[in-house]
Amino acid sequence: MTAHLILIGDEILIGQIVDTNSAWMGRELTLRGIRVTGKSSVGDSREAIAQALERAASDADVVIMTGGLGPTKDDVTKTTLAEIFDARMVFHQETYDRIVAYFNKIGRPVSPAMVGQATLPDKAVLLPNKVGQAPGMWFERAGKVFVSLPGVPFEMEYLMTHEVIPRLLATFPTHPVKHRTLLTAGEGESAIALRIKDFEDTLPPHIKLAYLPSLGQVRLRLTDMWEGDVTPETEAQIEAELNVKIAELAAILPDLVYGYDDDSLPQVVGKILAEQGKQFGTAESCTGGYVAHLITTIPGSSAYFPGSVITYSYEMKTKMLGVRPETLTRFGAVSEETVREMAQGALRALGVDAALAISGIAGPSGGTPDKPVGTVWMAVSDGKRTVTRKHLFGRDRLKNIQLTGVYALNLARRFLLGEV
Amino acid sequence: MTAHLILIGDEILIGQIVDTNSAWMGRELTLRGIRVTGKSSVGDSREAIAQALERAASDADVVIMTGGLGPTKDDVTKTTLAEIFDARMVFHQETYDRIVAYFNKIGRPVSPAMVGQATLPDKAVLLPNKVGQAPGMWFERAGKVFVSLPGVPFEMEYLMTHEVIPRLLATFPTHPVKHRTLLTAGEGESAIALRIKDFEDTLPPHIKLAYLPSLGQVRLRLTDMWEGDVTPETEAQIEAELNVKIAELAAILPDLVYGYDDDSLPQVVGKILAEQGKQFGTAESCTGGYVAHLITTIPGSSAYFPGSVITYSYEMKTKMLGVRPETLTRFGAVSEETVREMAQGALRALGVDAALAISGIAGPSGGTPDKPVGTVWMAVSDGKRTVTRKHLFGRDRLKNIQLTGVYALNLARRFLLGEV
Repeated sequence: MTAHLILIGDEILIGQIVDTNSAWMGRELTLRGIRVTGKSSVGDSREAIAQALERAASDADVVIMTGGLGPTKDDVTKTTLAEIFDARMVFHQETYDRIVAYFNKIGRPVSPAMVGQATLPDKAVLLPNKVGQAPGMWFERAGKVFVSLPGVPFEMEYLMTHEVIPRLLATFPTHPVKHRTLLTAGEGESAIALRIKDFEDTLPPHIKLAYLPSLGQVRLRLTDMWEGDVTPETEAQIEAELNVKIAELAAILPDLVYGYDDDSLPQVVGKILAEQGKQFGTAESCTGGYVAHLITTIPGSSAYFPGSVITYSYEMKTKMLGVRPETLTRFGAVSEETVREMAQGALRALGVDAALAISGIAGPSGGTPDKPVGTVWMAVSDGKRTVTRKHLFGRDRLKNIQLTGVYALNLARRFLLGEV
Repeated sequence: MTAHLILIGDEILIGQIVDTNSAWMGRELTLRGIRVTGKSSVGDSREAIAQALERAASDADVVIMTGGLGPTKDDVTKTTLAEIFDARMVFHQETYDRIVAYFNKIGRPVSPAMVGQATLPDKAVLLPNKVGQAPGMWFERAGKVFVSLPGVPFEMEYLMTHEVIPRLLATFPTHPVKHRTLLTAGEGESAIALRIKDFEDTLPPHIKLAYLPSLGQVRLRLTDMWEGDVTPETEAQIEAELNVKIAELAAILPDLVYGYDDDSLPQVVGKILAEQGKQFGTAESCTGGYVAHLITTIPGSSAYFPGSVITYSYEMKTKMLGVRPETLTRFGAVSEETVREMAQGALRALGVDAALAISGIAGPSGGTPDKPVGTVWMAVSDGKRTVTRKHLFGRDRLKNIQLTGVYALNLARRFLLGEV
């Protein structure tokens, strides 16, 4: 089964919002063996929506549209779909009652626009939206399926999970695509390509390798493109083969690999801390709490993370962490000596077993000839051992903060594992 | 001039990365009067790239492709373009020398794959990439322009800014589209739609209103769709009319509006602090440093932000902020009494003029019948006055953290302005 996604809305074309819906849908569909062969974004115009829909239907079995179902005037999706599928717009009492109940539940008045929200094409199978207003719509024509969903991410996710995916799997026989992904931090795409060239050259033709670089990280994804019949035996065989190949790949890059598939650095660090029964904290200057934020995105992080201090000013570094004024004056706030004292101060101030300290120049200004913008010092210490690193990132403030987050968590990971 | 964007790469279709490139391009092109009429994403396949390119060329004057130019095997864009434009692949010494110089500058060895990177279609005008490896390529055919750029965001941004946009503006006469955007926090799309219905009904037909909702915020964008000739007089007239309309809109929603156009909440709060000459800090529990991170994404925030404490555990709240153990035992960590003491403790511990304290249950677990997941208490205090608020958000951990960030910064903004 193949799917094409259509994102509707001027705001996506002019870049006022970043589309995250289609990545979520791509991931969920792929996991279930539904191959996404294309995506398109169009504005809030009848002609553009109609054209995108016909093109998509010529390429794929299923067309999933999001957006353009809101109560406001700029949304034209619904009436365009009624025209395309030759349907009449009718008031749907059950949907209206559900919307009224939803508003009552969240304690808000029901706006008159909700009558419009409950007026829907009579040829659509309605997919009840229990977490918002507009229902999803399911149309069929000439063996193809067309689904329209609201653009609000959690409403789309709810309807995909509870309505669309179960119905798709019931309508079309699927053929699971298998992936395994190796997660690396600390090297670029080209350097990795060089190290794994021999591995890549000897991959069988039905296994595809993709490099997925992001800030400070590269994910290496192996995909099995098996086209033959899938029996329980071939499926087990494919899975075993992918596992062997991913292990081979990990063995070539032991210094860079931090996890697999859906792991993330904060999660991997958290898992190590939980296993070692250690309490961990941060003392952050240029990252301003970003690393603590990453750590606390993980559910249950309170088990190993009691707190942090963010010391942006000289005075705070002295007052909260006991960094000596002489150290700051002599070596500067961005120096090995300062992050060393910050880490040791954090161990005392937070009462933790291991602490990470960071000080740098995030930019865009504040650089000097010997400490340009993007210079970052970091230290991890457990009181007995302190490991420090210096990095030189770029000129973009937000990227410097994010890159520092990746490198700092990876340093903490390797420190805790005794690799550095 | 109209443009169509094509994002190339399996990783985008299967959702392993979120495409942020096209939002950036959409914003930059729109600002310069280049109308983005569509976007498509295709996999790393010759047929898909070729088809997307022909379709795009039938819709728009300019087709801009990103991705698929890396040195690794899964990238096929370049040879596909050579086929389409009937070009030969030739080694380009100047590009090779530039790549070698780039590698020398960043202190990395030159990989043999770089010979491939410097092998390029002979019919392309090469756009030198000073911040990476693969150059951009510019093709022309039958009055249309086709541009291919690397998918790495900062390389794409560099080439768009320094090469593509200046060349496009020189090639096609443009017609600036004017936008003004009003930024609101604290109400949903439907409630706002109800309040501004009369305003919306009386908008002239060439001014379009769009609702751009995101977590906790709705941006209201007015776009002038003037189709006639643009002279300096009409341009001034359009701008004046948009300004009048945006002021009318702001007057209807004085309690919700926090800024205009490219403003952001952290920037607006920072501006107020700088103007009032105040030092500000946070004491964060469930947000784990996220609010401090938002504040410090703004360049120059060190002028008004000396630091924060993140007190995730009971003990830290007591030790770092002086919250009384009785308060925690009697009312719980997530209570008005606790955030009040946290804010007052932060004023003392950080030595700041105003402090924001947050404590809540981010989830997914940890809720109780009277304090369900998503319950968040926040307080702002300047020592004389303390304002508290309780919110009940949803069940998703990351969304709860992000929503809390928006509401907390907005509360701080209104507190500093004396509105609450």
